[in-house]
Amino acid sequence: MRTDILVAARRFQDHAPFLHRTPLWQLPGAAFGLRCAEVWLKLEHLQVGGSFKARGMLNRLLANPIPPAGVIVASGGNAGIATAAAARALDVKCEVFVPTVCSPAKQARLRELGAQVVVAGAVYAEALQACLARQRETGALLTHAYDQPEVVAGAGTLAREIEEQGGRPDSVLVSVGGGGLIAGIATWFGRDARVVALEPELAPTLHAARKAGEPVDVAVSGIAADSLGAKRIGAIAWEVTQRHVADALLLPDDQIRAAQLWRWKQMKLAVEPAAALGLAALQGGAYQPGAREKVCLVICGANLDPATLA
Amino acid sequence: MRTDILVAARRFQDHAPFLHRTPLWQLPGAAFGLRCAEVWLKLEHLQVGGSFKARGMLNRLLANPIPPAGVIVASGGNAGIATAAAARALDVKCEVFVPTVCSPAKQARLRELGAQVVVAGAVYAEALQACLARQRETGALLTHAYDQPEVVAGAGTLAREIEEQGGRPDSVLVSVGGGGLIAGIATWFGRDARVVALEPELAPTLHAARKAGEPVDVAVSGIAADSLGAKRIGAIAWEVTQRHVADALLLPDDQIRAAQLWRWKQMKLAVEPAAALGLAALQGGAYQPGAREKVCLVICGANLDPATLA
Repeated sequence: MRTDILVAARRFQDHAPFLHRTPLWQLPGAAFGLRCAEVWLKLEHLQVGGSFKARGMLNRLLANPIPPAGVIVASGGNAGIATAAAARALDVKCEVFVPTVCSPAKQARLRELGAQVVVAGAVYAEALQACLARQRETGALLTHAYDQPEVVAGAGTLAREIEEQGGRPDSVLVSVGGGGLIAGIATWFGRDARVVALEPELAPTLHAARKAGEPVDVAVSGIAADSLGAKRIGAIAWEVTQRHVADALLLPDDQIRAAQLWRWKQMKLAVEPAAALGLAALQGGAYQPGAREKVCLVICGANLDPATLA
Repeated sequence: MRTDILVAARRFQDHAPFLHRTPLWQLPGAAFGLRCAEVWLKLEHLQVGGSFKARGMLNRLLANPIPPAGVIVASGGNAGIATAAAARALDVKCEVFVPTVCSPAKQARLRELGAQVVVAGAVYAEALQACLARQRETGALLTHAYDQPEVVAGAGTLAREIEEQGGRPDSVLVSVGGGGLIAGIATWFGRDARVVALEPELAPTLHAARKAGEPVDVAVSGIAADSLGAKRIGAIAWEVTQRHVADALLLPDDQIRAAQLWRWKQMKLAVEPAAALGLAALQGGAYQPGAREKVCLVICGANLDPATLA
């Protein structure tokens, strides 16, 4: 699977400047009031589309022949935006299915990216059903937010980029929803870095799977549900994290929110709640790095209403 | 004066991690829809206090003995915040004089940084008079937002850092208010890079000085007046820019605002209007780089109400 990441990275080279090589910001732990040696911030919220998802979606599109009907996805969030952006970069058609709860602002953003937006159903599951029915009809290439091998390999290029930019960190703290990002990162680092899974208490897909011994549906809610709102850990992520991820930590919403606000007020990084779990784990003490440890936090997305930072 | 920048940089080494080494993000021009080879973004809005000013203020404080009364400044903006932050880092007292127009949010931010906030007068000039009277009384060390040699040399460390991180750019686009930043940057690069001054049409301190043959007072208003609102170019900046800065471009507020919103929507960088002039100059065509040019934009600050990006 590490090979798949190298293949994805090579594909991306031919499609610069669609994807950005996002900055890796290496700071002393003391800058965060921490005793560890270094805290690295991978500023992946500056990626095209405002999240890491563009990597996975572009790889999915490049790895497959695109049918005349183009690509299709069910998502009003980062995965939808990333699919639309990748489709536009490759000049192919894109249909995005969203439920009625998807805000007009998000729908407008998808349309700006050239996507055809179809509002179907009251909740995500209904939008997905409509999307799958439509896909059978048109034969469009379906992208999934996290549980496709090309999507995971695309996300893994982020870990390779961290290593190129800063060498190997001792640990990487990664937020988990459906698990596409952590699957890619854990695949890249394997046993060479400690990859730590972070989940909101109110969206514990990996935690619940570990308890049950297999992926199970969970109820998701809370501050980060918008981007970590998958109901079940992906099959790929389940398999990879069982092998490579020892720690799966749960974080309360109030710590996540405090970390999100700290990032803005103290560091001028405007990020979504899902991107604040790493800092919440460090500042709240859920994860305690060693004195000589170099900890890398993946700042995974910035799809937020900036007014929520005021 | 280049030596002063090296001296400042050496002083800063002993005071890590107070100051950040901010990321230099090097992107292909095509990422901005431009034909030039590369656009570099120096993400200095991520500096401590949310602007480049922390460099100058820390250098001012380190270069002088601090009297028992501590430091004193008249500024409700970036210079006040930077002075307060530097004073706190060195554990010295700090008084900040602001006019009544200074928002409660900004006053609260100054107090959070440990400063004693004194509200004096309806406008900046009155706050400054009160500040100077108080300084004569207490003997505190006065910091000036842009027209002190240590402040300019501190700002110059930003240019040295760019060169360390990415080599020498062909051109550097810098916003000008009182001119402390461009003075530092032009001092560092001298004739080795083309340093371009950017001003809002509604705050043209350098432009007016060039027209008059000497620094003169101008009326300032408009979208960027909050941070580029100096009424007159500083004496140091006047001298340095006369030698090293050929181009002084004026930009209309609507282009500045459009560039600020583009930065957020397309790049997820939340920056103040003053930090958007470089992009406005490129996207509006006021500055047209050559096909092989590497242009560096200094993203100088992020002291904004995030709700204004919505």
